[in-house]
Amino acid sequence: MNRKMVFFLIGRILLLEGGLLLLPLFVSVYYWDGGQLPFLLTIALCVGLGLLLNKLCRTDNQVIFAKEGFLITALAWLCVSALGALPFVVSGAIPSFVDAFFETVSGFTTTGASILTDVEAMSRSMLFWRSFTHWIGGMGVLVLMVAIMPNLSGRTIHVLRAEMPGPTMGKLSPKLRDTAKILYLLYIVMTALELMLLVAGGMPLFDSAIHTFGTAGTGGFGIKAASLADYTPYQQWVIAVFMMLFGVNFNLYFLLVMRRFRSALRSEELWTYLALVFIATGLIALNVTPQIGNTADGIRAAYFQVTSISSTTGFSTVNFDEWPTVSRMILVLLMFIGACAGSTAGGLKVSRVVLLYKTIRREIRHMLHPRSVTSVRFEGKPVDSPTLISIGTYFALYIMLFAAFWFVISFQPGFDGVSNFTAVAACYNNIGPGLNLVGPAASYAGYAPFFKIVLSIAMLFGRLEIYPMLISLSPSTWARK
Amino acid sequence: MNRKMVFFLIGRILLLEGGLLLLPLFVSVYYWDGGQLPFLLTIALCVGLGLLLNKLCRTDNQVIFAKEGFLITALAWLCVSALGALPFVVSGAIPSFVDAFFETVSGFTTTGASILTDVEAMSRSMLFWRSFTHWIGGMGVLVLMVAIMPNLSGRTIHVLRAEMPGPTMGKLSPKLRDTAKILYLLYIVMTALELMLLVAGGMPLFDSAIHTFGTAGTGGFGIKAASLADYTPYQQWVIAVFMMLFGVNFNLYFLLVMRRFRSALRSEELWTYLALVFIATGLIALNVTPQIGNTADGIRAAYFQVTSISSTTGFSTVNFDEWPTVSRMILVLLMFIGACAGSTAGGLKVSRVVLLYKTIRREIRHMLHPRSVTSVRFEGKPVDSPTLISIGTYFALYIMLFAAFWFVISFQPGFDGVSNFTAVAACYNNIGPGLNLVGPAASYAGYAPFFKIVLSIAMLFGRLEIYPMLISLSPSTWARK
Repeated sequence: MNRKMVFFLIGRILLLEGGLLLLPLFVSVYYWDGGQLPFLLTIALCVGLGLLLNKLCRTDNQVIFAKEGFLITALAWLCVSALGALPFVVSGAIPSFVDAFFETVSGFTTTGASILTDVEAMSRSMLFWRSFTHWIGGMGVLVLMVAIMPNLSGRTIHVLRAEMPGPTMGKLSPKLRDTAKILYLLYIVMTALELMLLVAGGMPLFDSAIHTFGTAGTGGFGIKAASLADYTPYQQWVIAVFMMLFGVNFNLYFLLVMRRFRSALRSEELWTYLALVFIATGLIALNVTPQIGNTADGIRAAYFQVTSISSTTGFSTVNFDEWPTVSRMILVLLMFIGACAGSTAGGLKVSRVVLLYKTIRREIRHMLHPRSVTSVRFEGKPVDSPTLISIGTYFALYIMLFAAFWFVISFQPGFDGVSNFTAVAACYNNIGPGLNLVGPAASYAGYAPFFKIVLSIAMLFGRLEIYPMLISLSPSTWARK
Repeated sequence: MNRKMVFFLIGRILLLEGGLLLLPLFVSVYYWDGGQLPFLLTIALCVGLGLLLNKLCRTDNQVIFAKEGFLITALAWLCVSALGALPFVVSGAIPSFVDAFFETVSGFTTTGASILTDVEAMSRSMLFWRSFTHWIGGMGVLVLMVAIMPNLSGRTIHVLRAEMPGPTMGKLSPKLRDTAKILYLLYIVMTALELMLLVAGGMPLFDSAIHTFGTAGTGGFGIKAASLADYTPYQQWVIAVFMMLFGVNFNLYFLLVMRRFRSALRSEELWTYLALVFIATGLIALNVTPQIGNTADGIRAAYFQVTSISSTTGFSTVNFDEWPTVSRMILVLLMFIGACAGSTAGGLKVSRVVLLYKTIRREIRHMLHPRSVTSVRFEGKPVDSPTLISIGTYFALYIMLFAAFWFVISFQPGFDGVSNFTAVAACYNNIGPGLNLVGPAASYAGYAPFFKIVLSIAMLFGRLEIYPMLISLSPSTWARK
């Protein structure tokens, strides 16, 4: 294993984090809210550590393989979260490091689960940094590094592949750096668009920025105890529509920009995703309108909660934990499905679910007609056996790890089964709020520090789609040959 | 579709059920406990219906394909359960047909979940029939039909394959009828052995028969409210050991009888199963001994509950719902794994879990070394891609159906999340007792009739390993071409 190159790149990532921290530093200077020193100190630490690693680990052998790719990804996310937690600790906003680490991992992984019991007491710059981590984590720190840093060797595909969600990675351009750049450009344009629409609708600039970061990264950190309940219907509609849009595969936006409309609109995953969103909205609207009072509010609340959960964002306009069982169960099912591959959303991803469904259908057809030979087709192309095996395997691993996390979490005293189950589901799928004790009106503050670490790890497993974390945690990866 | 042949064979099965009902009739005559008339009436109905179907559906075209195999299996189990419920209804022992149907499906599928709140008030012959359904369902009604009925065409493999648990069906003999005969012979010998050991240990003959049926079929119906708590340690040990033995693939016993010791003892599935049982026993014994008081009792209670749950029997010697969380969670995990393929046990089966684990390991190896080519090996042979895809697909289907059943059951008012989750887990995996409101000291009586039907269907899905039920319930199966 090329350890030097691994730590060299980690150094690069820390330098990048130092740069990104300039933005909240600027916010804290603007509002002069006491965040200046904590951010300055953290920047100094990031830059110092980054330069040190780059100096110590400079190497001529820049070749990295898949294993290094997974390792770099997992380590980068851990380091960035650990250092990103420092402003909260130093400023005293979140005095416990474990709590601050949970909050920062929750930010970068775009989970949006919070240990804060009084979010409105936080200073502006801290709220800004907390939500900005969503935006960074949404598209990915490594994608950003590849996009903006020159002179990285061509092997970076291993890094990108490990960080990008979905069963296969689409290359938008033969050059990886160009792919990364295009992705970030689209991301920035869509972010700017949402920001403008919110500001135009009368939302203060600061609030608009926070909610845009939360939407773009499909994260869900807000600035009010009641999440988005107090905003206007127009503002809620804008956010709901953008949550849905950020759940779409970014490759499709690229195709639209390239004017390849037909390829973009032929996407099976897109239509399945949209169908899921609209059917779930319809069912929930029917179910909750009597409780809410009028149809327009019912539809808005249903659509908002459905896009929020299916894109794994986690914003809320109502306390859906008080909804009838049918609606709550539909939301729990949507938690697991998630949105499209190649988006900023979490969950299993619609394409995996579609492929599993098609494989099951073929399996049944094959059982009834043992001599029939049919292939599973997706997005107009036949899917080969290794991919089908991979998807089944991923699903099995996903469920087994879910069971393992649930097993560990169930040792937390004083939490009921539904709270624990949905806490793991909401963290592992990067959604944020669960039900009962971790419902949208509650927080994760009640978990003991050990379980907060476990849930943080679950978030990283979910965001990085299992393998990078699994490989980094296995002792054989670290053994010297 | 060859409808005539489907209903002809259903007729045969009903005749067979009429024959099997002679045994409880004999018991009711012996004890003269009022069961005579109900059993006689049911026998008359089985024979009448059976003869009618055989007369109406006699056909020269005896060819059946896979689809008919699945259909016959599902229909046979439904019909046998519906008619088997009648003695309970007619005698007034269980006045509601839905309750009696639940109890009979639970019997045949070897689940052992009960709606009885006072089992000790039941008459002897009813208790006998209730437990005898376990014994019949354990090895399978269709296997029995193939074993004893002459002049069935060679196509019966489709019927056997649909009824036998596990990812692949082992043929013990080139002739299917011989395989079925060998299986039943081994089953009868082991049943007799357990019965003798229990009687020799001082358990009354009636009690011994009931518990032997429950063990052999891995069912779990008992005759006391406290299940096996009041029996002697020797009797509990005998039952615990036999629960473990009935969880082993019957092919291995055949190999032992044939003196092919080496092939039998080389089984990976066997060793994994035994390792799971002994590790779980060790962990639980450590965990519960302080609560139980002394080590010998702790080990016995742990081993009994572990073999009971992992073989999906469901007997209990203590109320394990009062055990600490660790032990309860270990039992819930064992519920899903189950025992070996080709045994009378339910659950996912150890071989599927082992194969999933190996596929995951290969997937990771392949990710780290993309050019490496390694095959998954099981029981000394490489496993081909279609089998790996099938196992992943089965797992996905299994989890999705589990979620669907859980979804439906959660509408039952007044039941908490843990009760509903473990009720579905216990029925779907054919175990019997769950936790909380459906724990070993409670019953399923509290569910509304609709949910009892849903849970009965879950049991049939579990026992027949999904596909026969799924195919029978799909409208396309029934459409005329």
